[in-house]
Amino acid sequence: MIKKARLFTPGPTALHPEVQAALARPIVHHRTDEFRALIKECTAGLKAFLRTEDDVITLASSGSGGMEAALVNVLSPGDKMLALVAGKFGQRWEKLGRAYGMKVASLGATWGEAVTPAAVAEALERDAEVRAVFCQFSESSTGVAHDVKALAEIVHRHPDTLLVVDAISGAGAMTLETQAWGIDLVVVGSQKALSLPPGLAFVSVSERAWKRVESTTTPRFYFDLRRERAGLARGEPGFTPAIALVVALKASLDAIAAAGGVESLVANAGLLARMTRAAAKALGLPLVAPRDHGDALTALFAPQGLDATAIVKGLKSTHMSTVAGGQGELKGKIFRVAHLGYYDVTDILGLLSTLETVLQSLGHKFDLGCGVAAAQAEFIRHTAGR
Amino acid sequence: MIKKARLFTPGPTALHPEVQAALARPIVHHRTDEFRALIKECTAGLKAFLRTEDDVITLASSGSGGMEAALVNVLSPGDKMLALVAGKFGQRWEKLGRAYGMKVASLGATWGEAVTPAAVAEALERDAEVRAVFCQFSESSTGVAHDVKALAEIVHRHPDTLLVVDAISGAGAMTLETQAWGIDLVVVGSQKALSLPPGLAFVSVSERAWKRVESTTTPRFYFDLRRERAGLARGEPGFTPAIALVVALKASLDAIAAAGGVESLVANAGLLARMTRAAAKALGLPLVAPRDHGDALTALFAPQGLDATAIVKGLKSTHMSTVAGGQGELKGKIFRVAHLGYYDVTDILGLLSTLETVLQSLGHKFDLGCGVAAAQAEFIRHTAGR
Repeated sequence: MIKKARLFTPGPTALHPEVQAALARPIVHHRTDEFRALIKECTAGLKAFLRTEDDVITLASSGSGGMEAALVNVLSPGDKMLALVAGKFGQRWEKLGRAYGMKVASLGATWGEAVTPAAVAEALERDAEVRAVFCQFSESSTGVAHDVKALAEIVHRHPDTLLVVDAISGAGAMTLETQAWGIDLVVVGSQKALSLPPGLAFVSVSERAWKRVESTTTPRFYFDLRRERAGLARGEPGFTPAIALVVALKASLDAIAAAGGVESLVANAGLLARMTRAAAKALGLPLVAPRDHGDALTALFAPQGLDATAIVKGLKSTHMSTVAGGQGELKGKIFRVAHLGYYDVTDILGLLSTLETVLQSLGHKFDLGCGVAAAQAEFIRHTAGR
Repeated sequence: MIKKARLFTPGPTALHPEVQAALARPIVHHRTDEFRALIKECTAGLKAFLRTEDDVITLASSGSGGMEAALVNVLSPGDKMLALVAGKFGQRWEKLGRAYGMKVASLGATWGEAVTPAAVAEALERDAEVRAVFCQFSESSTGVAHDVKALAEIVHRHPDTLLVVDAISGAGAMTLETQAWGIDLVVVGSQKALSLPPGLAFVSVSERAWKRVESTTTPRFYFDLRRERAGLARGEPGFTPAIALVVALKASLDAIAAAGGVESLVANAGLLARMTRAAAKALGLPLVAPRDHGDALTALFAPQGLDATAIVKGLKSTHMSTVAGGQGELKGKIFRVAHLGYYDVTDILGLLSTLETVLQSLGHKFDLGCGVAAAQAEFIRHTAGR
C-alpha cells in the first residue's frame, strides 16, 4: 500500500512547496550584493511576521541557540532571573540560566496549566532583583499558551526587568504583537510556523533590551547579538549564514505574505486547533490543557486504559503519519498534533480519520466517524461565520 | 486559510516526490551512453509494469498519440475495425479510425456499462473482416472497466484479428497481464498510475502484432513503430525523446519497484476504490457504473436535485481539491474521483471528509461523518484481512 510520510509534529512541520523548490536551487555566495539584499528583505519579512519594528537577528542555529542568545545577552553572571516553568521548555530556561551562573528563580505550574500573570506580578513585587522574566508563548510539551500580553504589561511596571519570550512554536500560530505589547526579546525557530527545515533562529530585540545587551558581561562569541546588530543594516551576518535556509526563508516569507500575512497563518492554525479539540471531545480524548491551551498544537491524553505510545506507533506504522508523543512527566500518557505552519483542513481531517481507525484497532469504543463529524461541523461553523 | 492544491483527477494524477526531484535535475543529453542505458532500464521497467516480454515503445506524446500509433500501425486504409464504445474514450477510437479512412464498426454500451465479451464474440463471428478490436481497459468517462482478459480470449479465436487496449488509465490500477492474456497492443500514458506529468505514451506490441505492423500501408512518420523498434535494443528512440520525463520515468519505476511492484500499486487503487464506493453508498451518491466499475476511478452521480458541477466547484474553491466533472452526455451530472497512482488512505479520507462538508453546504441531507465512517470501516476490514 502507498503510505505518504506526513509530519504532524510541532516542529519540524511540513515544508512549504516553495521552500522545497528554493532548497533545490544551486548554492549562491553570501558575500555578494544579491545575498545582502536578500538578507535585508528577509529581515523586513521577519519584522512583519513578528509585528515589530525592533531589530530581528537571524542566527544559524536551532531554536535553543536563539534561547541561549537571548539569555546570555541580557543577563550577567549572578543576575537573578525568573523562569515560568509550565513544561519541558520552561525547564530549558532554568537549565540555561544555571549553565551560565545566573540566580534562577522559578514559577511552576502543573503540566497542562499556564503560569498566571497574577503569580508573576506577585513574584516581581516580592523580589525587586529579577532582571529578566523568561517564558514560553506556546509550551510545546503540553500545548499550553502563556498570556504574554498580560505578562508584558506586568513586567513593564519594573523598569529594570525585561521580558524574554520563547515564541519558537507560538509565533505564527497565535496573535503576537511584539512591539505593541512591548516584548523585549522574542525567539523564533525556522522549523515551526515558517515551514522551513530547522537551522535558523530569529531573535527580536527591543531598544530597551539593546541597552541591557551593551552592558551585559556574560562571555559570548557566536551568539553575541552586538556583532549581529553591527552588520544588520548592511545585510552582513557575523558568521557564515546558513545560505540555503536563508534563500528558503525568503520563499516562505513571500508565500506567507501572498496568502494574507501572519494574521491569516494564525487564523488557519486556530481553525485546525478548534477542529481537533472538537474531534477530541467527541472521541473522548481529554485535552492536556483544557483551560490554558494554545493553538500551535493540541496535546491529548490517550483514552482510559490505552497507551499513548501505541497511538503514536499505530499512526506511524499504519499510515506513516508522525504525531509527537509525550515528553518528561507526560511521556507515554499523551500525544500531540501540530497546527502551526503549512497544514490545511484536508490535512487535519485526513489525520483525524486515520487516528480514529487506530483508536478503534486499539480497542477504544466510539462510533467510527464521530470525531471527524465534530471537526467537520466546526469547519462548517467557521465557513458560515465568515 | 491555507489550502493545498490537490489533484484527485484520473490524470494528471499527483506526482510522486521522487518524480518531482528527478524533474528538478539538470538536463542531460540523449546521445550519450548514460542516457541510452537509462532508456533500456526504463523499457525493462515498463515491461515489468505491463507484465510482458513484448517490446514496449516509449513515445514523446500524450496518451492519444499512443492510441494513434497503435491504430495507424496495425490498420491499412479501408480495413475494418471494431470499436467498443462505452464512453468518451471509446468514441476516440471511432474518430481515429474515421480520420484514417478505416471502416469503423462499433459496439456501444449505455454509459456506465461495459460492452460484454459475449457481444464481441457474436460480432466477430458475424463479421470475419474485422482486422482489429479496440477498447478501453478503464473507460475514464464513466469508471467502467472492460474484461480485457475475456476479450483477448475471444479475439484470439480469429487469427487475423488483433486486440488493441487503451490501458491509459487502467494499467497500474487493475490487474493487467499483457502477455499471459495475449493482448496485442497496450497503450499507456505517463500521467496516470505512473504518477508522472503527461508527455509520454507507451505502446506494447506483441510478436503477432509486429507482423501486421510490417505490412500496414497507412502513411505514418512520427508514430511509425517500425522506426522505434529498430532503435529499441540500442536505447535510441526515433526522435528526440522527452528527456526530463524519461529521467523522471526511471524514478517512478524505481519507486514502484521499491514499494512492491505493480501488484502493490493495483492493490492500493483497489482499496481506495472500495473505500470510496462504501462512502458513496452511505452518503447516497449513486455509482455511475454500479456493476461494471473498475478501480482506476469512481464516477458518482450527484444526489437527487444537486448539481454535480457545484460539487466540483465547491471542492475546488473551498479546499483546492480538484476532482473531475462529467464528460459528454454525463456533463453536469456526475463527478469523478481518481484512485490510480500516488494516493494513500489519508488522502482519500481527507477528500471524502471535505466532500461531505461540500455536500452539506449544498443542502444534501445526511449525518456528517457517515461516509467517512463507511470508508474507515472498509479500511479496517482490509487491514483485518491481511
